Amino acid sequence: MSASTQDLAAARARIAAAYDPAALESAGKTLVETLADHLRNVQSRRTNVLNWRPPKELVRESRGFLNSPPLPFGEGPGEDSASAISVDMIPTVVARFNDVTREILARGQNLHHPRYVGHQVPAPVPLAGLFDLVGSVTNQVMAIYEMGPWATAVEHAVVDAVGEQLGFTAGTFAGLVTSGGTLANLTGLLAARNVSIGNSWSAGLSGCAPAPVLVAHADAHYSVTRSAGILGLGTDQIVPAALDDRRRMDPNRLEATLKDLRSRAVPIIAVSAAACATPIGAFDPVPEIVDVCQRHGVWLHVDAAHGGALAFSPRYRQLVAGLEHADTVVCDAHKMMFMPALCAMLFYRNPAHRIAAFHQDAPYLFDPLVPELAEYDSGVANLECTKRAAAFGVWGVWSLLGPQIFADMVEVTIDTARQFYEMLVAAEDFEPLHEPQCNIVAFRFRPAALRDAPQAEFDTFQLQLRRRVIESGEYYLVQSKIDGRPVLRTTIMNPLTTPDDMRGIMDCLRRRGRELLR
Amino acid sequence: MSASTQDLAAARARIAAAYDPAALESAGKTLVETLADHLRNVQSRRTNVLNWRPPKELVRESRGFLNSPPLPFGEGPGEDSASAISVDMIPTVVARFNDVTREILARGQNLHHPRYVGHQVPAPVPLAGLFDLVGSVTNQVMAIYEMGPWATAVEHAVVDAVGEQLGFTAGTFAGLVTSGGTLANLTGLLAARNVSIGNSWSAGLSGCAPAPVLVAHADAHYSVTRSAGILGLGTDQIVPAALDDRRRMDPNRLEATLKDLRSRAVPIIAVSAAACATPIGAFDPVPEIVDVCQRHGVWLHVDAAHGGALAFSPRYRQLVAGLEHADTVVCDAHKMMFMPALCAMLFYRNPAHRIAAFHQDAPYLFDPLVPELAEYDSGVANLECTKRAAAFGVWGVWSLLGPQIFADMVEVTIDTARQFYEMLVAAEDFEPLHEPQCNIVAFRFRPAALRDAPQAEFDTFQLQLRRRVIESGEYYLVQSKIDGRPVLRTTIMNPLTTPDDMRGIMDCLRRRGRELLR
Repeated sequence: MSASTQDLAAARARIAAAYDPAALESAGKTLVETLADHLRNVQSRRTNVLNWRPPKELVRESRGFLNSPPLPFGEGPGEDSASAISVDMIPTVVARFNDVTREILARGQNLHHPRYVGHQVPAPVPLAGLFDLVGSVTNQVMAIYEMGPWATAVEHAVVDAVGEQLGFTAGTFAGLVTSGGTLANLTGLLAARNVSIGNSWSAGLSGCAPAPVLVAHADAHYSVTRSAGILGLGTDQIVPAALDDRRRMDPNRLEATLKDLRSRAVPIIAVSAAACATPIGAFDPVPEIVDVCQRHGVWLHVDAAHGGALAFSPRYRQLVAGLEHADTVVCDAHKMMFMPALCAMLFYRNPAHRIAAFHQDAPYLFDPLVPELAEYDSGVANLECTKRAAAFGVWGVWSLLGPQIFADMVEVTIDTARQFYEMLVAAEDFEPLHEPQCNIVAFRFRPAALRDAPQAEFDTFQLQLRRRVIESGEYYLVQSKIDGRPVLRTTIMNPLTTPDDMRGIMDCLRRRGRELLR
Repeated sequence: MSASTQDLAAARARIAAAYDPAALESAGKTLVETLADHLRNVQSRRTNVLNWRPPKELVRESRGFLNSPPLPFGEGPGEDSASAISVDMIPTVVARFNDVTREILARGQNLHHPRYVGHQVPAPVPLAGLFDLVGSVTNQVMAIYEMGPWATAVEHAVVDAVGEQLGFTAGTFAGLVTSGGTLANLTGLLAARNVSIGNSWSAGLSGCAPAPVLVAHADAHYSVTRSAGILGLGTDQIVPAALDDRRRMDPNRLEATLKDLRSRAVPIIAVSAAACATPIGAFDPVPEIVDVCQRHGVWLHVDAAHGGALAFSPRYRQLVAGLEHADTVVCDAHKMMFMPALCAMLFYRNPAHRIAAFHQDAPYLFDPLVPELAEYDSGVANLECTKRAAAFGVWGVWSLLGPQIFADMVEVTIDTARQFYEMLVAAEDFEPLHEPQCNIVAFRFRPAALRDAPQAEFDTFQLQLRRRVIESGEYYLVQSKIDGRPVLRTTIMNPLTTPDDMRGIMDCLRRRGRELLR
């Protein structure tokens, strides 16, 4: 046996150990117990929301793990047996695995803590994570149907079912799942660009005059404005659509904008509306905007990443009425469907547009013998080539619990936000900035001591106070800017958050505010 | 109690049940057993590789699950207790969950089967999936540091460690993790566009004359050519870089191409090289290409999505020498680091370029009080806003097993591919098309009966034979095109695949070929 052959035999032994199903089984069972205990602690408010630590420290620590001596995997008595890890070794593996995973849990953001009321990222349904585990361990991917037949089928089923819930008619639309709302917005706007400017995919935009524009909600998410930068339009080519006094796109002023652009023969890629926009969760009047866009023959894109899921609730679905008349609609399952990141959906009213965003030749992917399979090859419609089975979680939770659970989570979180708003209205030292349409509430805290403070001091106080609160671990909330001024903002993204928790955040802000002012 | 309040109380009970840690624990333990049994069956070759079923059937079945009656979650005696699911109900939940997950496993592509030798998608290290579970259940995400402090730290540690392995000097480069190699290539080329054409982010490309070009490897992955379509350059603006007789980019002809473009003052976004290109796994001579690009002041992007991981192996790392001199380098952990999809990395030689791809204002994300944290906010450098903790798997496996396991998997899979090539050379009825540089082998099968067949018939035979083999479930291999003609292609992406398995694929092709010719 040459040295090289010996090396390879040793390598094969180590690999067999790493791939041993017994290690997965044993470590996995312990992990599931650890996760359940973690959820119990977090959900019962016995821990911090955020275990704040400065980034440099954490980076150093996480790098430290990579430099620690590895386990003696693939060595010892088990190496040639059917099970490559000897039974004696499994406790060592599990113990080390357990140490490592506990370190992860001790240093994270605890979204399942009912006092996590921050970004538009949910405390997900825990069972959804188990469906992700199936996808990860077995690596069910797409690009072509063959590589993930069930992953593909599940994606089709989920896109169909959610699309129908949004109001599209079964069998008349198309959709896809992609790695995040930003990518979904980019893909929809790319399709719009390619359709609006017929040769832009192949010829590019360099010869395009006058320069095309994107008409976007003045409060559009940064992924929409970014898209103009990415797609070669240029962010200067964004024409902001004017808002009404509740920060919703104003259809009359949109009409005037489009009329003006058309009169100057400026190519319009799309109008990008929001349901809802992020600052205060305002829902655009989609039916009126649809009318305006149809009148001018302009592609309508609606970023319903956050609000699309309101369609599951009989109580709130009127806020997203009319989505089915938009050309493209984005809805993130990892927002108000309470799924783990990332599972974003893009819908096309016209199914022929599903392949409008990308054009390519990848001969090693598509089989010319069975061209009918290409409809099921996600690669033709998605930016991603290899793509996770991102819809397993939605599909699994829906299969077990039915669509009612999505309605429940929408209704409970919006109700909690509205109760919080009422508390803010009733309090003398809080300024709610809008009546909430959904689970987003922006406000300011104005203690008596700052009643006559200069605006700059008062604004900085909001930011300082938020930082003090989140670093304390008591609550997690975020800041935003409205009309250029900082505000506090909560989104109820954990359906276990109660009105009492929201009463508590007011007390917490008062207490931490007093500390800060001392 | 109003009807509405009653409704909300019932919704809260259902939600408490869905979020019950006991359900996660019980279902999770059963799942882990199921997954371990599945791996045992698959790894021991007792199942089909692919359980082929036509897509329409599977879509119908998967939709059927969504229409089935949901479990009576949140009802019954447990609803008001601390544990919302009564203990009596847990077996029902687990049984249903178990049914559903078994259905997933019965209908997938079995990448852990040693006879899966198809696309550049690996049979991942199973333990990596458990780290993904932690990320999914707790939804550790990024965009800003606060939302996933440990996820951020882990990403920094992994990017630093892998970058150093690729040859970059510690502390002198930057990098990020993104949702797939396509997105990593797009991001790198977007940074190149923004740097090469200084105002293209804000002004767009419409006024840009002469039209800029991208010089790309003639065998570049479709994500590279797509990028030109997405970024507004136009796919017609791709100048193919000529290849040598082993399908590697030819530095001398690249020199001539760049000289010509420069002499005509055509803006060059970048040269996109490959390590390796997909058709036959050819590695470009990066050091020579670096010299040419530096001479002409052109951005060099290297798509090392597949081959980057060879840097872990002392035996093969010379194939990726010089990567540290490229401006941007892509390396996918979900290829030859054998991680579950998706975990792609993009490296910038110049750390200042990390923020060259995107520019945006997202006031609700970044905290002006602590600007030093922005360096740790992934959103400034990534297309994704919300982003999965995609590096947990690499970090976890590396922490447990050390970097040796990555070297082992590279060496064993390349060795198997080379042994397969030798078998093809020795066989009279097989035509290997190249000496493999890595774990990719392209070939044709030419049985005696087709020795004098017309080329078209012979070419179609390759495609028909492959389809017959994959639908049988015996092996999974892919087709590709080389010089416009179909070929068979295997990539050893399962380190448990043995040379005997590759001997077996030849017998399988012979046997299935005889059936086909009858």
